[in-house]
Amino acid sequence: MLMGPGPSDVDDAVLSAMARPTLGHLDPDFLGIMDEIRAMLRAVFRTENELTMPMSGTGSAGMETCMANLLEPGDRVLVGVNGVFGTRMAEVARRCGAEVVECEGEWGRAFTADQLRAASGGGRFDLVAVVHAETSTGVLQPIPEIRALADELGALLLIDCVTSLAGHAVEIDGWGVDAAYSGTQKCLSCPPGLSPVTFSARAVEKMRAREAPVQSWYLDLSLIQGYWGEERSYHHTAPINMLYGIHEALRLILEEGLEARFERHARNAAALREGLAALGLEVRVPADERLNSLTTVAIPDGVDDGATRRFLLEHYGLEIGGGLGPMKGNTWRIGLMGTGSTERNVALCLAGLRAALG
Amino acid sequence: MLMGPGPSDVDDAVLSAMARPTLGHLDPDFLGIMDEIRAMLRAVFRTENELTMPMSGTGSAGMETCMANLLEPGDRVLVGVNGVFGTRMAEVARRCGAEVVECEGEWGRAFTADQLRAASGGGRFDLVAVVHAETSTGVLQPIPEIRALADELGALLLIDCVTSLAGHAVEIDGWGVDAAYSGTQKCLSCPPGLSPVTFSARAVEKMRAREAPVQSWYLDLSLIQGYWGEERSYHHTAPINMLYGIHEALRLILEEGLEARFERHARNAAALREGLAALGLEVRVPADERLNSLTTVAIPDGVDDGATRRFLLEHYGLEIGGGLGPMKGNTWRIGLMGTGSTERNVALCLAGLRAALG
Repeated sequence: MLMGPGPSDVDDAVLSAMARPTLGHLDPDFLGIMDEIRAMLRAVFRTENELTMPMSGTGSAGMETCMANLLEPGDRVLVGVNGVFGTRMAEVARRCGAEVVECEGEWGRAFTADQLRAASGGGRFDLVAVVHAETSTGVLQPIPEIRALADELGALLLIDCVTSLAGHAVEIDGWGVDAAYSGTQKCLSCPPGLSPVTFSARAVEKMRAREAPVQSWYLDLSLIQGYWGEERSYHHTAPINMLYGIHEALRLILEEGLEARFERHARNAAALREGLAALGLEVRVPADERLNSLTTVAIPDGVDDGATRRFLLEHYGLEIGGGLGPMKGNTWRIGLMGTGSTERNVALCLAGLRAALG
Repeated sequence: MLMGPGPSDVDDAVLSAMARPTLGHLDPDFLGIMDEIRAMLRAVFRTENELTMPMSGTGSAGMETCMANLLEPGDRVLVGVNGVFGTRMAEVARRCGAEVVECEGEWGRAFTADQLRAASGGGRFDLVAVVHAETSTGVLQPIPEIRALADELGALLLIDCVTSLAGHAVEIDGWGVDAAYSGTQKCLSCPPGLSPVTFSARAVEKMRAREAPVQSWYLDLSLIQGYWGEERSYHHTAPINMLYGIHEALRLILEEGLEARFERHARNAAALREGLAALGLEVRVPADERLNSLTTVAIPDGVDDGATRRFLLEHYGLEIGGGLGPMKGNTWRIGLMGTGSTERNVALCLAGLRAALG
């Protein structure tokens, strides 16, 4: 059972869908599946954005897609860095030739707009980038106040919602987000391998006005749109069977209903936190900044990180995650994502930890 | 039935493998699968190269991996362009900041070393890049004489073997190839989504000596090696279920034996060509430059390309490919790849064409 920071457990129906015979990437039946994927992704992202689709790579490919297409050499980017994925966004933006200003935040805390405003130094920016759900720390970042700040700076707003999409509300249109990327292996409950992305009309306009070509041919949206759009022109061979998987995963999500799904994630996360407290374990993030999909727990003094996780894997068949960066060795990451967010999994995880901590 | 330029038909055993429950990307069982994939890929590439593994993207991501890691801004590249994929290699190399010299060749013919030598103008180059198996034209490029030319120019040699690997002999060590990429959806008989790559010690040395970071973070081998190598450090979440698929596909290939597999591809391609001749259809490429995995056929005057292919799809459940670039509308592409290279498929394709042209 996968209760770490992802990949998460996958429904049998999704696995079965992936085992269907491979169709040609220009077969009319397959093109119909692609159209349905786009429509369902718009529903999950809560957006009308025309440019919404899964990229043929994992979440980090989605991050790079956003940066490489939105940025030209010399563009100014303000990145909120309070965990591994903010650090990565800054690095990827630099490799795209952008001038990156990093706003360093505490690991395990969300940003306020004031922190980012102070780091900006008051200049104009082309892009503000923050992580909506920091998989390394378990923090949920409020977005509306960051949108307001981006407006002050004249910038587009990019968010990483790899660990939030389909587990927490992601309001692309409601919040006025210009670009977002996610991954299939978290709350979408599909194996890793695809990265859903979406872009606002303003983001598309910035891409259209580019002077330099996108440095990555594989991730160049001006070319990829030709395949996912009306023309159906060949770019690269789509990962057909992975797309069967996300099609079925999205169908199951919309069948459950987004609000019901968010409520389920909230309920099970609350039960987990309550149980952890009863075991004397401390949840790391302040209550109003916590993710429901991923809970970070302080490892008590004297408890061996690796030995505990090995015990859970061997005796309970249960994988939880260790910490990254400054949280390595002192933090566990417990995922309750998508299909895996169940009362039963909460109970099993708590029983396993109780046994491990003896 | 997929008898176009790829994706090709996939064994049920491979599809079933992909439907196995998703393991964590750092689970010891999964790390064992990764090691086996690397060992089997070395056998199929016929190489001892340490840096051999599947990239988390389709064949074009493999192409970009090679270019982005091997090239630094200002490096000189000589590219053989005699089809869509040579054209793409030149474009990708330019986007990596290289100075690209294109050697234009006839579509449907292999290059001689003399053609490339003439185009080089005698200067020094960092990289020579040619397509071993041109999926757009059905041409097989002899490699040893191109290796000799690369030596004259002081260059590394990169080959595209997307449509040859596991269908034709690819002798990475025997020919002295420095870098190669392939795709899973052709003669490897696995769904699209991964791109096997391999790099010689000299290629690794060039990457180690880089001054500029690789412009793509997602495809940066210096980081990816940390995960596939001893350290097992997290880079991106591997596409677990796709990797189950390639593991099973490689196992089946080595069970059949490479030589037996090449012989099967040759035998069925010969039968197809004979049958096409009996129907009065002309195979496009000279006999000694033909791929066994993909046969290009001239569409007779007065025959409707689209209508014929629709007839085959509707009445025979059989997909063949149309032409690309200058071959669009005047050429069909018939694939006999991996699992799909069978006497039965040859017979069915010929029967379908006979009925369509009847």
